[in-house]
Amino acid sequence: MKVINVTASKNYDVIIGEGILDSLGERCVSLFGKSRAVIVTDSNVKEHWLDAAKKSLQLAGIETLVFVFSAGEDSKSKETLFELLEFAAENKITRSDFLVALGGGVTGDMTGLAASLCLRGIPFVQVPTSLLAAVDSSVGGKTAVNLNAGKNLVGAFYQPSLVLCDTNTLSTLPDEEFANGMAEIIKYGVIFDKELFDKVRGGDVKSDMENIIARCVELKRDVVAKDEFDKGDRQLLNFGHTMAHSIEKCSNFEIPHGSAVAIGMVIAARASHALGWSDEDCTAAIIEANKNNNLPCECDFAPADLADIALSDKKRTGGTINFVIPKVMGECVLKKIPVDVLYQIAEYK
Amino acid sequence: MKVINVTASKNYDVIIGEGILDSLGERCVSLFGKSRAVIVTDSNVKEHWLDAAKKSLQLAGIETLVFVFSAGEDSKSKETLFELLEFAAENKITRSDFLVALGGGVTGDMTGLAASLCLRGIPFVQVPTSLLAAVDSSVGGKTAVNLNAGKNLVGAFYQPSLVLCDTNTLSTLPDEEFANGMAEIIKYGVIFDKELFDKVRGGDVKSDMENIIARCVELKRDVVAKDEFDKGDRQLLNFGHTMAHSIEKCSNFEIPHGSAVAIGMVIAARASHALGWSDEDCTAAIIEANKNNNLPCECDFAPADLADIALSDKKRTGGTINFVIPKVMGECVLKKIPVDVLYQIAEYK
Repeated sequence: MKVINVTASKNYDVIIGEGILDSLGERCVSLFGKSRAVIVTDSNVKEHWLDAAKKSLQLAGIETLVFVFSAGEDSKSKETLFELLEFAAENKITRSDFLVALGGGVTGDMTGLAASLCLRGIPFVQVPTSLLAAVDSSVGGKTAVNLNAGKNLVGAFYQPSLVLCDTNTLSTLPDEEFANGMAEIIKYGVIFDKELFDKVRGGDVKSDMENIIARCVELKRDVVAKDEFDKGDRQLLNFGHTMAHSIEKCSNFEIPHGSAVAIGMVIAARASHALGWSDEDCTAAIIEANKNNNLPCECDFAPADLADIALSDKKRTGGTINFVIPKVMGECVLKKIPVDVLYQIAEYK
Repeated sequence: MKVINVTASKNYDVIIGEGILDSLGERCVSLFGKSRAVIVTDSNVKEHWLDAAKKSLQLAGIETLVFVFSAGEDSKSKETLFELLEFAAENKITRSDFLVALGGGVTGDMTGLAASLCLRGIPFVQVPTSLLAAVDSSVGGKTAVNLNAGKNLVGAFYQPSLVLCDTNTLSTLPDEEFANGMAEIIKYGVIFDKELFDKVRGGDVKSDMENIIARCVELKRDVVAKDEFDKGDRQLLNFGHTMAHSIEKCSNFEIPHGSAVAIGMVIAARASHALGWSDEDCTAAIIEANKNNNLPCECDFAPADLADIALSDKKRTGGTINFVIPKVMGECVLKKIPVDVLYQIAEYK
């Protein structure tokens, strides 16, 4: 078991280990006392992990309510968000109570936003059950839902009180979902840590997940501590994401986030090399890592469409856009580029 | 003209004066540069003050968009909130841009929440045009929309970057709206300042509005500085509000907020005296002040209904509720009471 303390506007622990879901209840009691909990989970995760989470909370003396929504990105919406908020209000949830996000990124992002909005803020706990959520979305306090106009355009910075990651939950992940998480792990390697990249490049990772997840959380912890509100260094985590969001949108969200990031990283690396911004061409290494981890490297959307959509993205500031480029493997930097250069970048898809 | 600096998680000025709406544009340029603005206003205020606000921003070189919604409490909803958020996203509003809340409490609360959620936070400016907004809701960063289950149950603590109060805008207020603002001013007097109470008790206030508003803002500023996130002293501002929210709900929001607060203060004062919690019976003085300012003092809803609704209110914590009582005129305190005592209090309506 590994414990990583995150220091942001709130201090909290990220706990990673095998079989630790059983300890959820007692950990929550020590944080919140014997208050009430709403477990928020989707129709898939419910089948596998709801009973264990609920039992642990109830055994510890916490009255537990359950809110289940339909699995899928479509549920990351104002409708589901407000159904949850009405549910909490109808059940007279108070500021002493808390939410538990049991699931992947959609669950965590939407539940975190609901917690920030419910009575202007009640605590919440992240219990990531997908690899993507474990290494990325459950840590750092970015919460969101989607708009018609784009992904994650509505949200809050709101930190959880605890992140509990039971690596056993990864066993019920479909292969495609596991691969999605690997895309973010490859991303951490390219941005910050060549050693991590080399560890996952070959694709044989399953025996070492606790260490790999813990390393990603440490890297994210460090960048969130420096820049919680996403004004500088934290934007490095967007490596591959500018194009990824466009790819997801172009595919009507048929292409999942991790696959889109995998493709986005290849585009960013190839364009950065071609435009003379990189000291090292990282494209081949990223393609190799993607392939060995069952991730795609290309898409067939029109470059102009990809660029158009990226311009409604939230990272744009006035007439320029912050774009993340690899200088060398293990070290990315932020580059401010004029908006129209995005059309050139998209050509390197 | 009076300038009051508020120190919270953000520092900002509240500027109060006659005819200062013209200076909106230049003040925004000095805060945000020549970015873009979305003026948010309702169908009533639009007729009186939109042109002046827009002209001031445009003359200062700020590109200005306008979002108008139907006047009324019904618009303080998830629907209007997300229409505004989609509007901002469609118009590619960035983190360098800002919102302007031009109107009363509904406009300010809803716009502030939208600003906090848009791209996880963009700046906003409050331009209160109602007395209620000028002395209360525009200062201190409480933002919200309503749920079916209750008023203000969804929101954020999110401070504006500037509050600009042109006392000329009060001239277009209907008498009933003016009276609603006076209820909050009477409230500040009872909680904090006997001198202020005595000044407004007789009802002849219109020649002195700049000073009266400024005094209320100072009092609110001091309490927000001590307790921005509403865990202690700030709850004093809820004097009269526990019952007021129930009264509004019972009346299907036919009884406006200020009138409900006026009645709520009478109930709280009468109950506090009857239950032996007050050192002085403030009931008669509050009734006198209400009457002289065209405010009601009673309602005919069933006590049990009032208490039932108050229990879904956000101020409840576990099995007790924080209730504000006057010790003597000009000094209120927080009292933790068991939930069921609320049913006794409601009998003193």
